[in-house]
Amino acid sequence: MTLSSSAVAPDLDAVIAAHAALRSRKPLVQALTNAVSTNFVANALLAAGAAPAMVDNPEEAALFAGIADAVLINLGTPTAAQVESMRLAAAAAQKAGKPWVLDPIAAGALPWRGAVAAELLQFKPAIVRGNASEIIGLAGLGGGGRGVDSSADPAAAVPAAVDLLAHAAAVSASGPVDHVVGRVDGRPTLVKVGGGSVWLTRVTATGCALGALAAAYASVAPDALTGLVAAHVHFAAAAEIAAENARGPGSFAAAFLDALDAVDEGALRRLAKIEPAVAAG
Amino acid sequence: MTLSSSAVAPDLDAVIAAHAALRSRKPLVQALTNAVSTNFVANALLAAGAAPAMVDNPEEAALFAGIADAVLINLGTPTAAQVESMRLAAAAAQKAGKPWVLDPIAAGALPWRGAVAAELLQFKPAIVRGNASEIIGLAGLGGGGRGVDSSADPAAAVPAAVDLLAHAAAVSASGPVDHVVGRVDGRPTLVKVGGGSVWLTRVTATGCALGALAAAYASVAPDALTGLVAAHVHFAAAAEIAAENARGPGSFAAAFLDALDAVDEGALRRLAKIEPAVAAG
Amino acid sequence: MTLSSSAVAPDLDAVIAAHAALRSRKPLVQALTNAVSTNFVANALLAAGAAPAMVDNPEEAALFAGIADAVLINLGTPTAAQVESMRLAAAAAQKAGKPWVLDPIAAGALPWRGAVAAELLQFKPAIVRGNASEIIGLAGLGGGGRGVDSSADPAAAVPAAVDLLAHAAAVSASGPVDHVVGRVDGRPTLVKVGGGSVWLTRVTATGCALGALAAAYASVAPDALTGLVAAHVHFAAAAEIAAENARGPGSFAAAFLDALDAVDEGALRRLAKIEPAVAAG
Repeated sequence: MTLSSSAVAPDLDAVIAAHAALRSRKPLVQALTNAVSTNFVANALLAAGAAPAMVDNPEEAALFAGIADAVLINLGTPTAAQVESMRLAAAAAQKAGKPWVLDPIAAGALPWRGAVAAELLQFKPAIVRGNASEIIGLAGLGGGGRGVDSSADPAAAVPAAVDLLAHAAAVSASGPVDHVVGRVDGRPTLVKVGGGSVWLTRVTATGCALGALAAAYASVAPDALTGLVAAHVHFAAAAEIAAENARGPGSFAAAFLDALDAVDEGALRRLAKIEPAVAAG
Repeated sequence: MTLSSSAVAPDLDAVIAAHAALRSRKPLVQALTNAVSTNFVANALLAAGAAPAMVDNPEEAALFAGIADAVLINLGTPTAAQVESMRLAAAAAQKAGKPWVLDPIAAGALPWRGAVAAELLQFKPAIVRGNASEIIGLAGLGGGGRGVDSSADPAAAVPAAVDLLAHAAAVSASGPVDHVVGRVDGRPTLVKVGGGSVWLTRVTATGCALGALAAAYASVAPDALTGLVAAHVHFAAAAEIAAENARGPGSFAAAFLDALDAVDEGALRRLAKIEPAVAAG
Repeated sequence: MTLSSSAVAPDLDAVIAAHAALRSRKPLVQALTNAVSTNFVANALLAAGAAPAMVDNPEEAALFAGIADAVLINLGTPTAAQVESMRLAAAAAQKAGKPWVLDPIAAGALPWRGAVAAELLQFKPAIVRGNASEIIGLAGLGGGGRGVDSSADPAAAVPAAVDLLAHAAAVSASGPVDHVVGRVDGRPTLVKVGGGSVWLTRVTATGCALGALAAAYASVAPDALTGLVAAHVHFAAAAEIAAENARGPGSFAAAFLDALDAVDEGALRRLAKIEPAVAAG
């Protein structure tokens, strides 16, 4: 296997270019996601400038993966039929060369879905996105040996994220500072993205929406790492804008969708908090 | 078969009368809809003045169609079990003389659900509602021969809508100007409804909510064409009111539900944009 | 069977203590709920200070009931697979000594789910919560003999609620004044909770969110009756705060989530409307 690698580490200019590509190309994202998040994920994609399609039955999932620009597979509330759809969509996306994102919710904590997540890794997601314990848990399932860790610190998930580069081109662990890992010139590299808002932790499905945004960006960026960093930056900037007007989690959720739409090049330049890339692992 | 027909083309007075009937009778709408839209469809029905019930399992779908005043069948995210429920609910609604609405999302583009949609037409929906390409696609499946067309212009869907009058009493294609087709005094007739807001295209499930509103109105209006025109006018007026206060898609969605509730006779008189009926097809 | 009983009737001080416990312990609530409510229930739990997990497949439901602090089972849109999950989760919760809440939506009106509800009662929910006709309907299924009653007056549901104390430690019927029943010192006792907002009846899934909040409180309160009263008081106070700023059902829904978060001890002291407990049944 040829390991995916970026030519250069993504920086603000690369994020701005990816954002412009998203807005002009309006990629179609097929989302096989959990029941809690379907509406919010679709609205987040529309607000950010992409188009959603929640085709997740076994009869249509593979066909649609050939039509969509990218695929999101989120393990939040899997059913037997949806898992079958996930296998079909991931295989079809891989075959068609479409990027797909794995969001392995609770995969390290619940054995049934853990087995599903481990099986799906064979279809080589462009991106794996989760919180720190999910990334650590998934890497443990994948043979990385670190097992489940309850730590919420994304920094602790970097070694696990590097392990997962055996399966995916880019991996991120969300947190107060998001940690994004990929290969640059062949070498494991870490890009940290700051900003965001604590309100994100008080609204359900925000992480799921970030995974969907990562899928959209992966289909328009030059490589998965750049797409994943761009998704995190767009997402964090929108959260900061939304937090200015939020009176609580309900008004934050609506303001966040408004802000996903409002984020433009100026907002990215003003709000992006991308630390210089460093070696990882 | 006796083709359904209105005695006169619906106008503003007919819409106002239908709105008054909706508010006084609060019809119960059984919605078999997609996973993305369930919450928004239920809230839109409640806001407009109807009552929702999302009974969509095969064990209860037929029984409940006999209890409800109208039924919505939306093909956005069909599963095998939900499709079985759709067959049962459509058959039960037809048998009980309850109006039902078919929203054939992507039926022309995806063969599996296309076959489902074509099969459901045998149960004679009161209304078919979709965007232009969905109406064209569904007519193609039904033997109209026009096939799928990617045009977003509702005017291009009028011939397909007229074809579908072989199965349904009224058909509409949503767009910047909604095109609503039915029979008046036996002749195919087109009523155009303007207004609305571009924000409707940036919030998921708004079209689904319109389909649900059409079901509610079909159960209280004198005929399906009048009910469908009334639903489009109520919907478009609410969107115009909501757009005045929206700062983006998130605040628009909340303001739209507020406005569905706020639309009264005065708002209909002020905002309704109904063009005089003309011959169609 | 030992009937559950509170030592003393819950009052404002008990509610304030339960609220403080909720905020400090952030209980994890497993919600097996209907498709309309998943997002709103999760957001309501997060806003109130708890944590949601919508694990409702048969493969994981029982395992997760052992991990969660409480379980919500809501019969709004049951599927065959979800019903199997409900049986497994209820049995596992009972075995593990975790409180679980039954929200028997339409159980008295639809025979299939009525049989499910009656079967689930054997697993001894800590709490049954519904509107008046649902409580009356469920009691009828359980052998109480009162059958279905369409009355919306919670007072009329008190005898049925007392009947249900054979299965559950506390039972409530929601309405303009919520009627909450449990045993105090062994005797059936009624606590009425006033307040709230008529907007609650115009937003879908608010009752479902109250059931989820009851599960959260049941896991941190000294007994089920105290937890259920605390959930009703927190909920009603939030509704009153939200109604002050609402312009309609859409803005009310967002403001309600804001208010679930904002309710603190001061708001409880200012807004709680708990009538002195009286004998019931």
